[in-house]
This record gives sequence, C-alpha cells and structure tokens, in this order.
Amino acid sequence: MTEEKSRHMTPDEFRKYGRAVVDWIADYQERVESFPVMARTAPGDIRASLPALPPETGETFDVMLKDVEEKILPGVTHWQSPDFFAFFPSNTSGPSILGELLSAGLGIQGMLWATSPACTELETHVMDWIVSMLDLPETFRSSGAGGGVIQDSASGATLCALLAARERATDFASNAEGCDGRLVVYASSQTHSSLEKAVKIAGLGKNALRIIPVDHRYALRADALSEQIQQDRADGLIPCMVCATVGTTSSNAIDPLPRIGRICRTEGIWLHVDGAMAGTAAVCPEFRHIHNGLAAADSYCFNPHKWMFTNFDCDCFFVADRAALIQTLSILPEYLRNQATESGAVIDYRDWQVPLGRRFRALKLWFVIRHYGVEGLRLHIRRHVALAQTFAQWVDDSADFELAAPAPLNLVCFRHKGGDKVNQELMDRINKSGRLYLTHTLLDEQFTLRLCVGQTHTQARHVRQAWETISETGREIMGGGA
Amino acid sequence: MTEEKSRHMTPDEFRKYGRAVVDWIADYQERVESFPVMARTAPGDIRASLPALPPETGETFDVMLKDVEEKILPGVTHWQSPDFFAFFPSNTSGPSILGELLSAGLGIQGMLWATSPACTELETHVMDWIVSMLDLPETFRSSGAGGGVIQDSASGATLCALLAARERATDFASNAEGCDGRLVVYASSQTHSSLEKAVKIAGLGKNALRIIPVDHRYALRADALSEQIQQDRADGLIPCMVCATVGTTSSNAIDPLPRIGRICRTEGIWLHVDGAMAGTAAVCPEFRHIHNGLAAADSYCFNPHKWMFTNFDCDCFFVADRAALIQTLSILPEYLRNQATESGAVIDYRDWQVPLGRRFRALKLWFVIRHYGVEGLRLHIRRHVALAQTFAQWVDDSADFELAAPAPLNLVCFRHKGGDKVNQELMDRINKSGRLYLTHTLLDEQFTLRLCVGQTHTQARHVRQAWETISETGREIMGGGA
Repeated sequence: MTEEKSRHMTPDEFRKYGRAVVDWIADYQERVESFPVMARTAPGDIRASLPALPPETGETFDVMLKDVEEKILPGVTHWQSPDFFAFFPSNTSGPSILGELLSAGLGIQGMLWATSPACTELETHVMDWIVSMLDLPETFRSSGAGGGVIQDSASGATLCALLAARERATDFASNAEGCDGRLVVYASSQTHSSLEKAVKIAGLGKNALRIIPVDHRYALRADALSEQIQQDRADGLIPCMVCATVGTTSSNAIDPLPRIGRICRTEGIWLHVDGAMAGTAAVCPEFRHIHNGLAAADSYCFNPHKWMFTNFDCDCFFVADRAALIQTLSILPEYLRNQATESGAVIDYRDWQVPLGRRFRALKLWFVIRHYGVEGLRLHIRRHVALAQTFAQWVDDSADFELAAPAPLNLVCFRHKGGDKVNQELMDRINKSGRLYLTHTLLDEQFTLRLCVGQTHTQARHVRQAWETISETGREIMGGGA
Repeated sequence: MTEEKSRHMTPDEFRKYGRAVVDWIADYQERVESFPVMARTAPGDIRASLPALPPETGETFDVMLKDVEEKILPGVTHWQSPDFFAFFPSNTSGPSILGELLSAGLGIQGMLWATSPACTELETHVMDWIVSMLDLPETFRSSGAGGGVIQDSASGATLCALLAARERATDFASNAEGCDGRLVVYASSQTHSSLEKAVKIAGLGKNALRIIPVDHRYALRADALSEQIQQDRADGLIPCMVCATVGTTSSNAIDPLPRIGRICRTEGIWLHVDGAMAGTAAVCPEFRHIHNGLAAADSYCFNPHKWMFTNFDCDCFFVADRAALIQTLSILPEYLRNQATESGAVIDYRDWQVPLGRRFRALKLWFVIRHYGVEGLRLHIRRHVALAQTFAQWVDDSADFELAAPAPLNLVCFRHKGGDKVNQELMDRINKSGRLYLTHTLLDEQFTLRLCVGQTHTQARHVRQAWETISETGREIMGGGA
C-alpha cells in the first residue's frame, strides 16, 4: 500500500504541520490579550458552524488549522490570558506544553512499570523532588512507606484517598462486602464539591458526610469536628476520613491542620489534605506555614496544573502508607501479569488510581521544574502573591468596596458595598466587557467577587487595569451609567 | 521584571524549541523500528541516572531534550513500534499528536460550557459524528435523550455507567443514603478487570459481582445470566447492571447482545456495553455485526485511544438517557454557578464524569477523523483485521501451534502445542529479543499467547516477521537450542 493511499502523516509531513501548529500557538501567545477573555458565543454557535457529518475522504491539515482559527477560537474562553482572574487558574508554560507534546509523540502507556519503566521511574523521581521543593513531610517520600503519584485531578485524588480510608476503616472489608451505612466522613462547609461527589461515588452516601462549621476566617472549627466525631461514635458509626483544605476554593481559607491532625491521630481517622491551588505556594519558604501540621496527614494533594505552570492534567497525590492505597486499588488479571510486577521490585501506578491506562505526565512536570528551576518558580509565586496583596490593599483603601475574607495568598474575596444585586451586575458587566474574567462565590450568604492572580503571564499592569475596570464599573452602576 | 529574570519561555523561544521537539518526534517515528520493542532497563536504572534534587536554577531546553534521548528513551517500551503486538494497542497518529499539542497550547478547561463553549460543543459534535461513523443506535445521539462524552478511559466510563445504574436501581437514593448491600452486578468471567474495580469503588462490594460463565467461544452465557438474575431476585437482591463486552481483553470474544439486551429490558436492568478496542471496527460496515443488539444498551463505550489512531486518553462514552447520568454526577456549588448553566440550554460535561476539570480532548479526535476521513479509517481497520486473519491462518496451518480461540477481528489467541512451560519460555525469549512484543492470557487454564494487530504502522512485513520469529523460537526451544 502506498503512503498516498494510507493517508498516514509521514514524518516529513509531521515536521511541516508540527511547525505550523507550534507557530500557531506562539502567535496565540502573542495575541492572547487582544481577545475578550470570556467567549462571547451563544449556545449552539460553534456547532452550527460545523458539518453535520464527518468527511468520507481525508482533508488537508491546512484546512483544519484554518478551522481552528475561524471556528474554534471564537468559542474559547482564554484561560491563558493574563487578564484571567476567574475560578482558580489553570496555568501553563512553554516547557509544559512541549512536555505534553513529547508525551503524545512517544505514545506510551504507563499502567505498569514494565510497559515503560521510564514513565514510572521519572514519575516517582519527580514526586520525590516535589517533596523536597515544597518541604513536605518525609512520610510522603518513596524511600519510606509512602510515595507520590500523578492523578488527573484533585477529584481523582480525593476519591482515591476516600477509598483507601474506607478500606482501612473496615479492616479492608469494604471492597469485598460493600458499604453498610456506618461510615462517616468529615469536612467543612467550605470544602470543595469533589469531596461530596467522592462520598456519593464511594457508596457512603451524602448523608454520611458531616459538614463541620467554620470560624470567622472560613476555616474548619476543630472543636466542632471533635464534638461531631464523639457524637457519631456514640451513635455506633465509624468515622472514616476527615478532608481538610489548604486554600479553600471560595476564599483560600486554611484549615487548622495541627489540631485536626491531632484529632485524627487520636481517633485513628484517615486525614486527607486538599491543597489543590495553594499547595504550590510552599515552594517559597515564607509560605510553608500553610502546611504546618501536614505530617499527621495520611494523604495530600495539590495541582501543578493550577498554579505551577504545568498544563492540565497534573495533580500530585501523596500517601504516607502506599500499601493501604495499593491494597485498595489493585487487581491483577492474568493478561497484566509480568515478571517485574511479580518481583515486587517495581511500582505499578495503575494500582494507585481509578483508571488502568495512564500517559507519561511526569515529562511535563519534569520540564517545568528544570526549565524554571526552584528559584524561578519561587519568583513567580511571590510575584503573584504580591500582586494579589496589592489588589487587596486597593480594595481595603476604597470607599466603595470591602474585603470579604482574609487573603492569605493570591486570592482576593471582595465586594462592592452596594449589596448582592450590584455585585452580580458588576460581575456580569465586567465579564461581558471582555477586559477581564472574574467569578463569584457566596460568603455569609453574600454574593462575593473573587479575583485570583495565578496566570503565568499576569503582570502588575493587568492587575492594575482589572482594579480600574472594576472600580469604574462600580461607579457606573451606582451612577446609573452604561 | 525582565523576561530574562522571569525565565518564561518567550513565543520565539517556543517556536525554536517547539520545532526541536517536533523534529525529535519525527526522527523517533523514523527510527522506532530500530529499538528493542520492550525496554531492557532493570528496576531503578532510570532513577539512578537522575539527580537526587531538583535544580535551584533553570536549565536550558537543549539539555532537557538531550536527557530525553539519553536517559528516558532507553526506558521506553515502544507502543508506537509496528512490532508492538502486546495487550491491546494504544495507537496514535500525526494529526492526533498535533491535536493534543493544540489542546495543551490553548490550555483551556472544559468543565462547564461557559468556561470554553468550543470545547463542549466540538465534543458533542464529534460524538454525534461517531454515532454516524459506527452506525451506533440513534438513542446515543445528543439530539434525543442521550448523548456522548469523552472519558479518560473505559475504566472511567464503566464506573460512571455503574454509578448511574446504581442510582436508577435505587430510585436515585444511593447517592444520598449509600449502598445497603442489596445491589448486584453481572458480567462474564472474561469481562475486563475495570468492572471489578468499579464495583469495589462504588461501594457495592466484590461479593455483589456475579461472574457468569462463558460458552466455548468465551462469550457470556445468556441462559446462565437469566438464571442468576432469577436466583438473586428470589433472594431479595436488586439486579443493578449487566456489563457485556464486545471484544474481551483475553480473546476478543463478543457477548450475545441481543439476548442479553432482551433480558435487561425485561428485568429493567442497566445494560453497559464495553467495546473498548473492538468498537472501532464498526467504522467498516462488514464488521458492524459486532454491535447487533446494542440498541437495547443504556450505555456503551469504546476507545479511539486503542485502535482509532488517537492518542491516550480518549474514551467515547455514550448513554441513552443523559438525565440519569447527569442527575447522578451533578453537584453545583456556588462558585460554579453561571447564567449558561442555569439556562439549561447547554451541556456541562463535568456532570458526565468523575473529575471536575477536563481538557480539550475533542480536538485530537476531530483532527484524526478529518485527516483520514471515514474511508481512510476503514482502510486501516480492514488492513489490520486482514493481517491478523492471515496470521491466524498461519497458526492454523502449523504443525507446532494451534489457535486457542476464535479470532473475530484483529486479535489472535494461540499457543505452542508443547504446553504452558514452552509457551511461557517462548514469550519470554521473544520479548527479550526485542524484535516484537507479545503478551499472554489464560484460556481454559492454559497459558495462551496473544497477538494483536493494531499499531498504526504495522504492515504485512511486520506480521510476517513476527510469525517467523515465533515459529523459529518455538523450534529452538523444542530442539533445546539457544
């Protein structure tokens, strides 16, 4: 069969079109500020521009790239714009993109050590690097009883933590016998929704999730946790896991790990700590206090795909006792048996996660760390935090706005003093303007704006312009202006 | 701050290093046949070559790419070698790699429609294309009550199917109340291990998994299924889901969907069909019989990342009733609320999967379909099946080897007539030779070799050479040779 007929892209064609895509991305980086941050397409617009049926015969790559520019780009919300301040960031960087490209080009499966030893070993190695970089507890290092693995997301990590906790709390019987309605899980009202999802998925049921109240800083109240545990024990229930958060999604609140950890140790409860965005801050010694008390945790995760310049998906998940995790998630059908696995000398990461397959995600994280160096990463984290703190100061100094919560790092929660309707209108107008993108939350039942500084290329001028737009729009609304 | 100090990769540097990586991948494609297919490194070799601590200051990209060549590549098992016949393939292609690159370059999050409408709409659109391409039941099309979503893997899809089935079987009470030990799930002894994992994860417990025996073709026995369901009903249990397989991992057996579907319809049991690898074959009209009876299924998945030239991860998961799936997996915290979601006019794919975040995976599948065209895809699927059938004929004609199971498509199960030890020795020697990579399974308690033809660039000469190596090695072993 000729290559013509096969339509496989030859290596030379790959060189040609690969360059075209690389150039397109570089161009995109250069003009990203020129787009409205939030896409302005109406539901169905993108689909309406696409043919109803797939092509019978192949098309040229040039046409496809043109369609990306003309049909896809208008429907993109620009997460990589320096004017993106919504949600938590999902930032990236050149070395990360190229790491992802290499991973796709190699096209290997890292489900077992044997299916590509480099994929597994680089991952273990980089996860140990992360322990050093963030000064995480030594319990998470692979040289002891623990270790790290890259998960798709904090949702995946939290689910795996809960499954291991469920197994440990039932003397490893729940995998065989299922849940029996006696297991309970604890988290604060500010915990990410992925925990509720995990509690449902794992068969414990939402009714088994105890929502512990928070203090005036939106951090979990350890005294209330302790009381709830006693109550549940008295009711014959089995406390299974506490999920504490370092940097909640709503307001970046930091739960009191030392007190929570002592309770979990005393009670024999699995402590999972979710540091999805904020965890990256610990690359700077001056922010490592956020992890005070983490040594008592059974598991911990944070997402380099949020604030460490590594493109989604890349969640770093650590456990202190890898045997509990592996025993929970391991199944060995005949078709996956191999000498390396049987020797016990290797890690098979399929037993550390829900899916069987896995791609070579360690490459991009390795590239990012090496490209920036630890000092380079620190520089940007410090810069982002300083910019957020400056913004918080502007809010605090303003007559029209007020801070809605402490801003320990790079997230500022604030509101216009005009009330919920004004703040909703403010957010809608700003997002519609395309000049920046903000999202909101509820704190104490009040509509609260969130500005999170974390996109790779956000500089002082972007934050200044954001503040100008926000305060100007506030004046317009109060003055009845456009 | 100067760009020098920031160490961000500038767009021009991205162009330069991007080209270097593209060229490296093209070179890799050109020389992939020169490597031993299975990596020869010993446990710890790769880690030993890496510095114990991350660099404090940044390194140049050239050094990193050199390390990929010198330190990583020796630890790679070459899934993209045309001599890779192990497991199921995880094939890829130029357009897919470039789609992944674009996705990483755009760096967008598709968790909500609003966070990038193009990401959601292209995905829905391409999933509808797939319905047309594979002539899947109309129930799976988004214009009706169903729809498709890209999951990470068949494991993820099976778990989501089971969760929706669990909810439906309990009148949507299991999410709130947890499992109560009465739900049961059915699958054959040949079903992929991810189902057992899902049953454990979802809190039903492995004891709730009924393993139905198979017939002489290794397909699920519908009569035995029916009997087991009646027995469980009589015992007061609640049949929740049947997982049928189109192309089992061990031998590519195809479960009798029409009979299983009738049972599930009558009994009101969720039918999930796993066509992880074989599903792609339905792009060819002559192979669509594998999906006979699929119209009765509540959900179905297959993996373009196995046999449709799309790099991992890309599992296409379809449901006939999207409302059941969404109701099962939806949680809406305040910080994710937005007008588009509240309008009900859009799809938010975070409610169709376990994780919250998701990257723009539809791009690569769109590129693959458009690059090859449906005819182009058919050509390669037909070619792979024909090559496997030729191999099966060689086995059947051989005095030393025999077929171990029917070979309906591209997987051939066979064994040397010398018994288990000979076959194990045969596989070990062949894999050690580096000339090809095979894996095994157990069928009727006998060690069975598997040869799966599915790598993008596998041609007749590779299959011929594989057979020569296999038969020659068999003769060596029987003759006591090296």
